[in-house]
Amino acid sequence: VNVNRSQTATASARLEQIPAPLVPPDVDTPCPIVDLAVLDRNIAAMQAAMDAAGVRLRPHVKTHKSTEVARRQLAAGAQGITVGTLGEAEVFADAGIDDIFVAYPLWCGGSKAARLRAVHERTQLMVGVDSVPAVEVLAKVFTGAPGAPGVLVEVDCGAHRSGVRPTAVGEIARAADRAGLPVHGAFTHGGHGYASPAARPAAAEDERSAMEIARCTLDAAGMSTDVLSAGSTPTALLAAQPPITEMRPGTYVYNDAMQVALGACEPAEVAFFVAATVVSSAVDGQVILDAGAKATSRDVVTQVQGLGWLPGYPKAEITALHDYHAFVSIPDGSAAPALGEVVSLVPTHVCPAVNLYDELTVCVDGRVVDQWKVDARGRSG
Amino acid sequence: VNVNRSQTATASARLEQIPAPLVPPDVDTPCPIVDLAVLDRNIAAMQAAMDAAGVRLRPHVKTHKSTEVARRQLAAGAQGITVGTLGEAEVFADAGIDDIFVAYPLWCGGSKAARLRAVHERTQLMVGVDSVPAVEVLAKVFTGAPGAPGVLVEVDCGAHRSGVRPTAVGEIARAADRAGLPVHGAFTHGGHGYASPAARPAAAEDERSAMEIARCTLDAAGMSTDVLSAGSTPTALLAAQPPITEMRPGTYVYNDAMQVALGACEPAEVAFFVAATVVSSAVDGQVILDAGAKATSRDVVTQVQGLGWLPGYPKAEITALHDYHAFVSIPDGSAAPALGEVVSLVPTHVCPAVNLYDELTVCVDGRVVDQWKVDARGRSG
Repeated sequence: VNVNRSQTATASARLEQIPAPLVPPDVDTPCPIVDLAVLDRNIAAMQAAMDAAGVRLRPHVKTHKSTEVARRQLAAGAQGITVGTLGEAEVFADAGIDDIFVAYPLWCGGSKAARLRAVHERTQLMVGVDSVPAVEVLAKVFTGAPGAPGVLVEVDCGAHRSGVRPTAVGEIARAADRAGLPVHGAFTHGGHGYASPAARPAAAEDERSAMEIARCTLDAAGMSTDVLSAGSTPTALLAAQPPITEMRPGTYVYNDAMQVALGACEPAEVAFFVAATVVSSAVDGQVILDAGAKATSRDVVTQVQGLGWLPGYPKAEITALHDYHAFVSIPDGSAAPALGEVVSLVPTHVCPAVNLYDELTVCVDGRVVDQWKVDARGRSG
Repeated sequence: VNVNRSQTATASARLEQIPAPLVPPDVDTPCPIVDLAVLDRNIAAMQAAMDAAGVRLRPHVKTHKSTEVARRQLAAGAQGITVGTLGEAEVFADAGIDDIFVAYPLWCGGSKAARLRAVHERTQLMVGVDSVPAVEVLAKVFTGAPGAPGVLVEVDCGAHRSGVRPTAVGEIARAADRAGLPVHGAFTHGGHGYASPAARPAAAEDERSAMEIARCTLDAAGMSTDVLSAGSTPTALLAAQPPITEMRPGTYVYNDAMQVALGACEPAEVAFFVAATVVSSAVDGQVILDAGAKATSRDVVTQVQGLGWLPGYPKAEITALHDYHAFVSIPDGSAAPALGEVVSLVPTHVCPAVNLYDELTVCVDGRVVDQWKVDARGRSG
């Protein structure tokens, strides 16, 4: 209990340091806003850290889903990109990106077989697998085709989501090899690092040790270990060491209240906000914002009290999100935004929030400088 | 505690009766599926109930956001439609629907003033207000214009979201009248009826009594009470009595696990499912579906154990939703879907789930008969 209390206190202290962004005047709310200067700094900093560690950066684009942001990541030095769905692969391949890893145990049912063949014809694709049946389905998709995509075997390093135990990669890899799929190595995701600040170094260590065991196992099976890929924003800076060859953080471009609370980014590194208007103050001790569940993320995050964070109003708590209403509880005597005021909301989890918008308003110092498409919005399969 | 336990038991028993829908073969998952026969039955049943009660039906289109569904509701006898945002009003006005109530305390900042004027030129608009400042901003939008939209004063009947106390409607109504906005009555939303089955009749009674007080207050202020509007799917059938003149349920077209658990619909009245594929079964006691947080709703609902419901697998529990992964916990010895199997997921809350998709696959008896656009998807402001 003491640990949790002190963690929450630290998380709150971090959140309180998020600078209130300058919001462009006359913005039509709810409006997703990208702070371009912060975004570019975040891209450069992660690239520099990976370069210094001698690890390739293959950012996960599910956070931003924007070809404009991916181009900036590649221009800064990223090796290629990571996607979570075939739909994302299609969008980024169409944009000319030719080195794409689908970090997902794809099951090629329905029209996915034809879609996968089509996208592999125009880009260099790598695909995740975590079972022999999935390997067989994937191989069948490319039977008789000129070349099949490479595969990485997914390893569970403690997140207990998908992936086999690291000692079991050999069986999957050999099945892929027999089926004619080129095996390039293994990948993992230390998602359990999102649990708390203390979980981050432990999850990073789990990523490294799982990849080391996978490396030995693949070696023993006579399979390639060219790619040993790991990563998440909470573990990226901690895990970027041998045997890991490649890191796949995604959230670091924009960050969110969860990353700040975890200490995985600095408060000044939040680059995405939802501008929202106070539309009602009729109920005592509360204001209503026009950024509801269809305008920001509903993720409940252990380290963050409430469903988002309002810079400048540290005592305000977002207690509920209905479709078009955010409930903001205002404790007695604490600062509250006024009726009609435009405030900035930091989502608890930025990835699902971005996926709600077709376009982002890009700002520098509170001036609108661009509109970017969220090209792969809704491409969830 | 006993009450809660028995409610949960009843809720589970109801959920277990949701028939597993026929899923079309070769569907590309995650795929939003509408059962057309169930949808049409739901539309007809709600209309018949409101007709029998002598109450006008003005369905909230935020659930479906599809002009195709709105046309069916109007053809069945609905008076007009309800929307939650100006963006929704624009989309449905463009589709030729000319009687639209914006059941929201609009604050016309940014470009909303020009947008509101433009949409009011091509449809008959009614707008919600719950403060004198909002009335003044709204009136200013229509200064010098040929005619301003009518207003309904929002009343808080116990949901404590937006709206004034029913005894306070007179002040807002008079301010609107002085500012040149035609006052037509009042509206409320018994959102606290979502709390539990027992809360439904209480919230319905709160809607009726709040509208009765509002009626007396408006009468005393010399203001119109032509429209006394209430409603939600949990309260619609219970509150449709005088003095209420109009009901605004939305969710009833598709329903969801929450409505089934609340007893607000029958298990056979669920018309919306997300078809999803088991993509991984690598971790013991668990399978992973490809319908994550960007493919279904993350709403946590008191009456439903887990983040959705899988007909046919009553012991399976959706314990977490990552962006592209649904975690399904399978207790020892209970039925589990197999790797590669396509299952149907009933969202906890259908409205935010529908808003994730551009198109819906419309089926009859497991055959695809149509594709419908979610025309107002993402129109959250």
